[in-house]
Amino acid sequence: MIARDEALALDAADPLAFARARFILPPGVIYLDGNSLGALPRRTATRVTDTVTREWGERLIGSWNDAGAGNGGWIEAPARVGAKIARLIEARGDEVIVTDSVSVNVFKLAAAALAMNPRRRVIVTESGNFPTDVYMLEGLCRLTGATLRVAADPLAALDDDTALLLLTQTHYHSGAVRDLAATTAAAHAAGALMCWDLSHSTGALAIDLTAANADMAVGCGYKFLNGGPGAPAFAYVARRHHDALDQPLTGWMGHAAPFAFEGSYRPGGGMARMLAGTPGMLGMAALASGVATFDGIDMAATQAKSTALGDLLLDLVAERCPGIDVACPRTARGAQVSLSHEHAYEICQALIERGVVGDFRPPDVVRFGLPALYTRFVDVWDAVDVLAGIVAHQAWRAARFAMRRAVT
Amino acid sequence: MIARDEALALDAADPLAFARARFILPPGVIYLDGNSLGALPRRTATRVTDTVTREWGERLIGSWNDAGAGNGGWIEAPARVGAKIARLIEARGDEVIVTDSVSVNVFKLAAAALAMNPRRRVIVTESGNFPTDVYMLEGLCRLTGATLRVAADPLAALDDDTALLLLTQTHYHSGAVRDLAATTAAAHAAGALMCWDLSHSTGALAIDLTAANADMAVGCGYKFLNGGPGAPAFAYVARRHHDALDQPLTGWMGHAAPFAFEGSYRPGGGMARMLAGTPGMLGMAALASGVATFDGIDMAATQAKSTALGDLLLDLVAERCPGIDVACPRTARGAQVSLSHEHAYEICQALIERGVVGDFRPPDVVRFGLPALYTRFVDVWDAVDVLAGIVAHQAWRAARFAMRRAVT
Repeated sequence: MIARDEALALDAADPLAFARARFILPPGVIYLDGNSLGALPRRTATRVTDTVTREWGERLIGSWNDAGAGNGGWIEAPARVGAKIARLIEARGDEVIVTDSVSVNVFKLAAAALAMNPRRRVIVTESGNFPTDVYMLEGLCRLTGATLRVAADPLAALDDDTALLLLTQTHYHSGAVRDLAATTAAAHAAGALMCWDLSHSTGALAIDLTAANADMAVGCGYKFLNGGPGAPAFAYVARRHHDALDQPLTGWMGHAAPFAFEGSYRPGGGMARMLAGTPGMLGMAALASGVATFDGIDMAATQAKSTALGDLLLDLVAERCPGIDVACPRTARGAQVSLSHEHAYEICQALIERGVVGDFRPPDVVRFGLPALYTRFVDVWDAVDVLAGIVAHQAWRAARFAMRRAVT
Repeated sequence: MIARDEALALDAADPLAFARARFILPPGVIYLDGNSLGALPRRTATRVTDTVTREWGERLIGSWNDAGAGNGGWIEAPARVGAKIARLIEARGDEVIVTDSVSVNVFKLAAAALAMNPRRRVIVTESGNFPTDVYMLEGLCRLTGATLRVAADPLAALDDDTALLLLTQTHYHSGAVRDLAATTAAAHAAGALMCWDLSHSTGALAIDLTAANADMAVGCGYKFLNGGPGAPAFAYVARRHHDALDQPLTGWMGHAAPFAFEGSYRPGGGMARMLAGTPGMLGMAALASGVATFDGIDMAATQAKSTALGDLLLDLVAERCPGIDVACPRTARGAQVSLSHEHAYEICQALIERGVVGDFRPPDVVRFGLPALYTRFVDVWDAVDVLAGIVAHQAWRAARFAMRRAVT
């Protein structure tokens, strides 16, 4: 049996333990849903208040050029915060920009891929991919007449009409992680471009988009990046594609000279042309603060800790929770674990009632996020202790049936 | 000569004077750029901080269902805030939703109009329209093969191949206001749908979309609605079109059952299908606070006051600023005035240096916004007094040439 003291010893030896102080976590709660909504960084309220009261309230329109306090202008914020995210995914600073949502960025990049590969008209993705990726590709294909191929084995579905392969690196449901370099190479071998959805990877795993030779990527600001509810997303395009980058949501912020008010669109240089409308500065400020929780943090250490947290969780479940099945890989797993049970929904509710916050994913999975910056080994031990009690007493029979939803 | 005391008397008699206390305005500044970025409402910092610290920090993922404090769940916020905006434009509450940017919403609605009018392939708009409207329509037409007709006289450009007429009600540059009902009727007479860009109208004018029989509209959250820099935008679709509404940015938040994680897109009911990605809740909270500055405010009174402010400004300029030309209509004008001068850029800089904030619009216009909720008649008098001094001394010769940009 793994004792609680062993978990405490792992925390005592954890080189990332100091990072937990960068967050404010509610007392009495074991929060294992940071893969859905990252926890609140300690500095975010101050940062957002400064944006509201000083940058907006005092400097007003002047903050577009210069928000003062050394923060630069709002107008450069999408590129500035993008460059900070770039470090976490081993991209060049000018290859990442913060803009819109993951959904909208999927649309832009997939349309751009079709434009870059004009003789090919098929987009391939995976069945069971996070729904918005599939839905947005459906919308694009209906609009343009391109074909969406949703395949259980997407690599086998590549052919010489495939313009783009779009896959999620870390699967939202199972936590399974794809090999960036090998998968990208397979897409390239078929003559397709590769776009990665890094929503459940960025801030969790050691990612090297440059080494993987990836073409495009999107990622989420409100999960492991701790950017706050509905934080803006990011987009990545490899520098070699910048000149050919042609996305259809050609808004004024992507124009080469937005303030010249020209009559016709001319794309801005590099990633600027990924912008569409005016970026939201409150969400941007919170995202900047969220990304700053990774200052000085090594992503390999982050991945190693989350893997160790997950391993501990799975070992404890195997020991103490008979009847609970494992629904995630033992290796090549993101910073999350998935367990399955016939009564997963009710178990999830029973856990929440007891202060352990994971989330339910249909049809039968309880999912736990394990962000390395603020999750302790003892949190995992205590969470499984609660789960073991629920299992031992079949407490799901009494769990509330009130519908709860969670945004992944 | 109009004396300063006359302006003070107008303020003393102003039935909207009380609303200025709803805002925090920086001392020593006459802010006449609220048509670009609305001023900070007094309650916004508290509201946003509550969203950050309590809704996000304490309740975490649970706020998607119920953010506490009687605010409802985050998930309903786009419809909830949309319904508040609906009152300001005389729409039904379920005809307006808050989502994305004006730019992105133009794309969605124009694509939806093409889908509703499938035998027509032309979109008509006005040359000189706010650039992002034109740019987004260019992007849509390049992607779909539809034709964009940008016409100096857009009503004359309607024909039996026109699917959509998209026009801005209040022109960003001149402030000229189009007649909603008559223009909509002309579009309908040609068999086209009508989409209004209300970015420079909402919160400024008494608008009645229902009486105008409008089909669609978009509008901006960060101008007269005081929602903060880059606030989310809104979209309106008349209820009679909801069942046929088919927009291509089919993200998971627009799905009929977002949390069922289905494999294929099914549109949600009504305006819900206008959503794409996860909405940003910090920007949403600030927008809600901005819209609340209109609580108890009559829009006809708002329009009347802004018109009177503009009339006073133009009268004062005519009296005191020789060589400054008027670049806006005397009647049917939005809550803004435009003046022109060969040295408009330098005059704008000189004004800003003296604490009077308007903005420059190329090639030769100084633009002043006159939001009724916080602009006083004496502000207008004082601003023209400063302008008259600049004109008298040709102070633009000394104005700084540092490039400044402002986001409309």
